[in-house]
Amino acid sequence: MLRVKMAGLGWYLPERRVTNVELEKRLGIPAGWIERATGVMERRYVSACESAVSMGAAAAYMALRHAGLEVNDIDAIIGASSAPHQAIPCTAALLQRELGAPEGASACFDINATCLSFLFALQTAAHLVTANVYRSVLICSTEVASRSLNPRERESAVLFGDGAAAAIITASQAGEESAFYHAFFETHSSGADLTEITGGGTHHHPNDPGTTPEMNMFHMQGPAIFRQAALLMEPFLDRFFAASGWERRQIDAVIPHQASRHAIEQLSRRFGFSSDQLILNLALRGNCVSASIPLALAEAVYDGRIRRGDRILLVGTGAGLTLGAAALIF
Amino acid sequence: MLRVKMAGLGWYLPERRVTNVELEKRLGIPAGWIERATGVMERRYVSACESAVSMGAAAAYMALRHAGLEVNDIDAIIGASSAPHQAIPCTAALLQRELGAPEGASACFDINATCLSFLFALQTAAHLVTANVYRSVLICSTEVASRSLNPRERESAVLFGDGAAAAIITASQAGEESAFYHAFFETHSSGADLTEITGGGTHHHPNDPGTTPEMNMFHMQGPAIFRQAALLMEPFLDRFFAASGWERRQIDAVIPHQASRHAIEQLSRRFGFSSDQLILNLALRGNCVSASIPLALAEAVYDGRIRRGDRILLVGTGAGLTLGAAALIF
Repeated sequence: MLRVKMAGLGWYLPERRVTNVELEKRLGIPAGWIERATGVMERRYVSACESAVSMGAAAAYMALRHAGLEVNDIDAIIGASSAPHQAIPCTAALLQRELGAPEGASACFDINATCLSFLFALQTAAHLVTANVYRSVLICSTEVASRSLNPRERESAVLFGDGAAAAIITASQAGEESAFYHAFFETHSSGADLTEITGGGTHHHPNDPGTTPEMNMFHMQGPAIFRQAALLMEPFLDRFFAASGWERRQIDAVIPHQASRHAIEQLSRRFGFSSDQLILNLALRGNCVSASIPLALAEAVYDGRIRRGDRILLVGTGAGLTLGAAALIF
Repeated sequence: MLRVKMAGLGWYLPERRVTNVELEKRLGIPAGWIERATGVMERRYVSACESAVSMGAAAAYMALRHAGLEVNDIDAIIGASSAPHQAIPCTAALLQRELGAPEGASACFDINATCLSFLFALQTAAHLVTANVYRSVLICSTEVASRSLNPRERESAVLFGDGAAAAIITASQAGEESAFYHAFFETHSSGADLTEITGGGTHHHPNDPGTTPEMNMFHMQGPAIFRQAALLMEPFLDRFFAASGWERRQIDAVIPHQASRHAIEQLSRRFGFSSDQLILNLALRGNCVSASIPLALAEAVYDGRIRRGDRILLVGTGAGLTLGAAALIF
């Protein structure tokens, strides 16, 4: 158990709401199909004046205000998104600049594990704060998923939304219950090609004449991921709870990665949680990739569904295929 | 001080040697200019049968043999490169698959801080191993820099090389001196645009009609980086040594990021190290981005220049602009 807390949370959502009616018309999808198939009713897409960096900085400012801290207090920035703003330098350094955080006062690096980037960053930050390497770590997940959607793959094209969320990790003070209890991750790479953008790296470089536009777009074998994740999640959660010493019924709030309606429904139908425990934002936000978990968490904290001292579980799957979970006292 | 060690090191270099004569001819550069300007005599470029993943896996196998471990022993894989193999999933998951490491037995994520990715990953791994989260962490830096070079920017086009290096981090055993002493990083983001690939992310997406081939290529303002790094490095090192409790003369080997001849020469000319302390591989490897430091370290360990118990300093700058250093007893 690490005596650290999420001292502040914040988020940013693009102005532009994209409704199912708009997408159904644009993509030639029958009316009502999107909500039935995915559970998403609307999502946000960035406009020309919004970017991963501008959204991330807005979410970070909100998290700082929530924590009662200033940009000067941050001594590490972790960019924790599935895609960078640009290939070089890392998004964390661009966030330092956008925030006007003082030169040289923070260490900037990115952590990427697609949809689980925030959870891996949280584990890293919790240990570095506990070891007194850093006092206040800003974790920022900011996603412009809309840029990489393939209109010909309707299941994924309608599922994702843009957005950003941020958390400030500090040590818990005397008398505060907040703690990072346990985190656990498992990668099952036989599923590595179930969720892919095969471009965007050195393998199919953007300037390679053999790189097609499709390679730069998101591709997801939805039903296969669902089957594999369903098989793996139950024993994963059993191992997680055995190691954490907690029981499912002790959890006040489960914040799942908002992968899809079916993935979330499994948590209550098969994996032992009640629907009262689940914090959901899929319907109005879509799947915001790495920002999904911290966004759902932040919204639930601000509207009072999650309070200090609550036992919370962050859980999900990400491309890899990786399963991850973290148990905290908020 | 963390009681962890680099239990094994390994590397992979592409078969194909690219000489200065070849580049001078191809890029229309006067004979002798490359070596004079950069200190690089040759570098390696991947051929069609080599990739970031294949090189990374070869380096990892070598590191595992060196450590006397099997792929089954790894419980975390950190991909620590400036560029991914593909945008999704993270390179670490692709390495798990390429290595044939057992499904579900390791947690896979990437850390990216351009040239300092290995150092940030080392700090993270050292803390996670110390906290008993993982027993054996594979860190793998694998770079196909040649794909992103701009032939019209001769200073950078001739500087970089491809290659991979890997390290296995475990706890030190009783009686072993090996330890991770101190690491320190500072990002100065007013220098964020001195080293850039502005494409390759969501800002100038590969499929955006406004994205030009130049945006997907590496751009470096060499003289400006050199000036800023020279100004920042001396006070950075003073702070580093004040906090670490070590003195410059106690270091057995300094392994700098092989940024350029001038950057490395500064270490002995201005920053208080002797040329005997420096481990260099720039002339035959070029700047291998994140793989530079672990590659130079691994080669020096294999040929006996660095031995168990030696005090070593890993130090360098990366895009951001970030300065970083780590002090270890090997």
